[in-house]
Amino acid sequence: MDIEREVLLKIEPKEDENKHILKVIENVKVEIQRVAESLGLSVEPILVGSVAKDTHLTDPDIDIFVMFPPTTKRQDLELYGLKIGNAVLKKCEKKYAEHPYVYGYYDDLKVEIVPCYKIEDPLQKMSAVDRTPFHTNYIIKNQKPEQKNQVRLLKQFLKGIGIYGAEAEIEGFSGYLCELLVLNYGDFKNIVAHAKDWKKGVVITFVNGDFREFNETLIVVDPVDPERNVASALSEENFATFIHACREYYAKPRFEFFFPNDITPEPIKILKNKIERRGTTLLCIIFDTPQTLPDILHSQLRKSMRAIANLCEKYDFKFIGSDYFVNTEVMLLFEFEVYSLPQTKVHKGPPVWHPNASDFLQKWTCSSKLVSGPYIKNGSWYVDIERDFKNARELIEAKLGTLSLGRHINGSVKKGYRILKGIKIVEERYAGWLTMFLNKKFRWEY
Amino acid sequence: MDIEREVLLKIEPKEDENKHILKVIENVKVEIQRVAESLGLSVEPILVGSVAKDTHLTDPDIDIFVMFPPTTKRQDLELYGLKIGNAVLKKCEKKYAEHPYVYGYYDDLKVEIVPCYKIEDPLQKMSAVDRTPFHTNYIIKNQKPEQKNQVRLLKQFLKGIGIYGAEAEIEGFSGYLCELLVLNYGDFKNIVAHAKDWKKGVVITFVNGDFREFNETLIVVDPVDPERNVASALSEENFATFIHACREYYAKPRFEFFFPNDITPEPIKILKNKIERRGTTLLCIIFDTPQTLPDILHSQLRKSMRAIANLCEKYDFKFIGSDYFVNTEVMLLFEFEVYSLPQTKVHKGPPVWHPNASDFLQKWTCSSKLVSGPYIKNGSWYVDIERDFKNARELIEAKLGTLSLGRHINGSVKKGYRILKGIKIVEERYAGWLTMFLNKKFRWEY
Repeated sequence: MDIEREVLLKIEPKEDENKHILKVIENVKVEIQRVAESLGLSVEPILVGSVAKDTHLTDPDIDIFVMFPPTTKRQDLELYGLKIGNAVLKKCEKKYAEHPYVYGYYDDLKVEIVPCYKIEDPLQKMSAVDRTPFHTNYIIKNQKPEQKNQVRLLKQFLKGIGIYGAEAEIEGFSGYLCELLVLNYGDFKNIVAHAKDWKKGVVITFVNGDFREFNETLIVVDPVDPERNVASALSEENFATFIHACREYYAKPRFEFFFPNDITPEPIKILKNKIERRGTTLLCIIFDTPQTLPDILHSQLRKSMRAIANLCEKYDFKFIGSDYFVNTEVMLLFEFEVYSLPQTKVHKGPPVWHPNASDFLQKWTCSSKLVSGPYIKNGSWYVDIERDFKNARELIEAKLGTLSLGRHINGSVKKGYRILKGIKIVEERYAGWLTMFLNKKFRWEY
Repeated sequence: MDIEREVLLKIEPKEDENKHILKVIENVKVEIQRVAESLGLSVEPILVGSVAKDTHLTDPDIDIFVMFPPTTKRQDLELYGLKIGNAVLKKCEKKYAEHPYVYGYYDDLKVEIVPCYKIEDPLQKMSAVDRTPFHTNYIIKNQKPEQKNQVRLLKQFLKGIGIYGAEAEIEGFSGYLCELLVLNYGDFKNIVAHAKDWKKGVVITFVNGDFREFNETLIVVDPVDPERNVASALSEENFATFIHACREYYAKPRFEFFFPNDITPEPIKILKNKIERRGTTLLCIIFDTPQTLPDILHSQLRKSMRAIANLCEKYDFKFIGSDYFVNTEVMLLFEFEVYSLPQTKVHKGPPVWHPNASDFLQKWTCSSKLVSGPYIKNGSWYVDIERDFKNARELIEAKLGTLSLGRHINGSVKKGYRILKGIKIVEERYAGWLTMFLNKKFRWEY
């Protein structure tokens, strides 16, 4: 198919790029050995990841694992792993989600140097990444040469529709998941043809035998560890988005699925008009972006969104949409259907015949918040009382500091935040994001 | 107890009233026989109801049943029953809920003449009222003389707190139910002492043996027909109100439970202030009271309230209280917490993998009501669409005529209705009712 050939021309690494990559890998391995020897360590550097499997796109991250003997103390693994990485690479960043490693440059190529334990069996894994070499080997052993470009096509398709990557920011498909899907279905075209008919709970396996029950929407049992679902990071939303994209692409293949057009931010005035025409109330909480790894930041942001949602629900405010946006500041956006409520609210008590009924009566009869009642409706006690917060902004201002937003977000909010409401949220620098929020189109529709 | 003696002085019929009643009963029976003979009928007039059981309050309804042989055709029973009644009484009204009868006056006393079948066993009942003579006999046979006044006390207590009568307007305790409670608990004081601890599902029986399972809050198995719950008309709200009243009376007996103070309507200005301070939106639907029996009217009004409640709920408007009031006009009152909503609403569709998903997409993509989307949230399709009704008034005006309100109410509404909103609902003639609605106190607290 022309489109897919055209895409491959853009994404398949060229011969001289690959030559350069191979050279860098050689050099990095040698340097690692050199540094390790100078530290008196016996380690083994190995290439893993997409470059090892020859499924990488252009400008890949080169993943080099440094295998330590299983007798190494965890503390030493971390210490020496970072030492080696910092000695070999330039412009290093220490990364540390579950596992510490060094991200940096060698020549002009991006390299990750990750310490791990050299184990015999993936089920004996001692650290979060010990399984990775087995994944790499499994793919190398089982993948046909012509499938490498099929993996590249799938990865680019997922990138294009915005759901490539298992990290917290994306909650999409990992590279390894892409490779397994190609192994299972043969090629990209066949994945599309099948995925368009996927239903919640699809199961894909590679080895016979039992595996535990998974609750996720897509279950791809890891051939290297049947206890693990390779697709566990995939959100239900992204699973559904993939199905829909496959249907659309199947019906009418288009280059834009792989390389979507840039989003042209709509003019400020149009955005304001759209907000006013919706008639809802938009509320934006803005604070400085805390300094932490993207994975931590985004999982805390999701937690924050949930906490604020629960708070609003508890106080009877109802929102119909929400999203967040990160640059130097974080913006948490909520679109309210019910933003303000009357002064008076109904509070339900126990049934009249419940042992707690008299406590309820005593509490509210004496309360300064009592408006009318106590009265009986059906079989239960009720009171009409004064509402604590007449609108969602009052509520959030009163309670935001008390919520569990995640450590870094809580810290940043404590330093200060501001709230914008309605059309005041529209600023030039957020125009692209607001364009997407207000139009709710898929990435390939722009 | 002094209060109860004081109450009895007011409610126990005096000797000369009773004498007069006995005289009227005699005369009515004779007249019935005379009219029946002139029609060539062989019937038997009998006294039933509270007067027969000597549990009546002053100015009672005298209930005379005219017993027809079971061979009588239903049509003839109704025809001749009404003929006899109309011939014997003055100022007659034909009443017809389940069963036709004549309500009118003899001398200055209120009399009901009701045709029924003379059956041997209440389980053979052929018309709705055939059981009544058996109820009367059961009480006469089992009631001790000193219990008659205890029944009177209970009836007056229930009248005072507003829940005496099994009719649709009240949904409270019938006279027969009062008599059975006295039989069961011995006297009024003991009823209060027990009822204050009642829980939902209390069962009271008088004969051994099985009875069917009842779902009501209070179950008093009819000793004359174990298939019937004598308390089936009692609403859960009134059951609970009775429990609470008994607790309050038990803790501190007061004359006001039997004879509550009149409700002093609050001044118009204060009512308006209270409405404004509540901050909710009050909406009143007003139309002419249809000509029909109270039982039919009130059961249709309850049906109307439910239908309007369901309508509002379906369209996302939320009310926290409702009531109705009847004089020459009917007023249906709703107190809204969410009275108006934004122009845009979210409409949820099927999961992306559901067979109907493509229909949903097709329908909404082409709809003129589409604001944004279709988009995916979690695993399902959503669209943002224009709301049909931006406030509850618009909704009710558009849909009231299409609702099942009950035949008479539908007819009256068709002739015309008006809607008042907010403080405009406050008029002098409804001030008493609004005073109760806004203060939500119990009848004995005024």
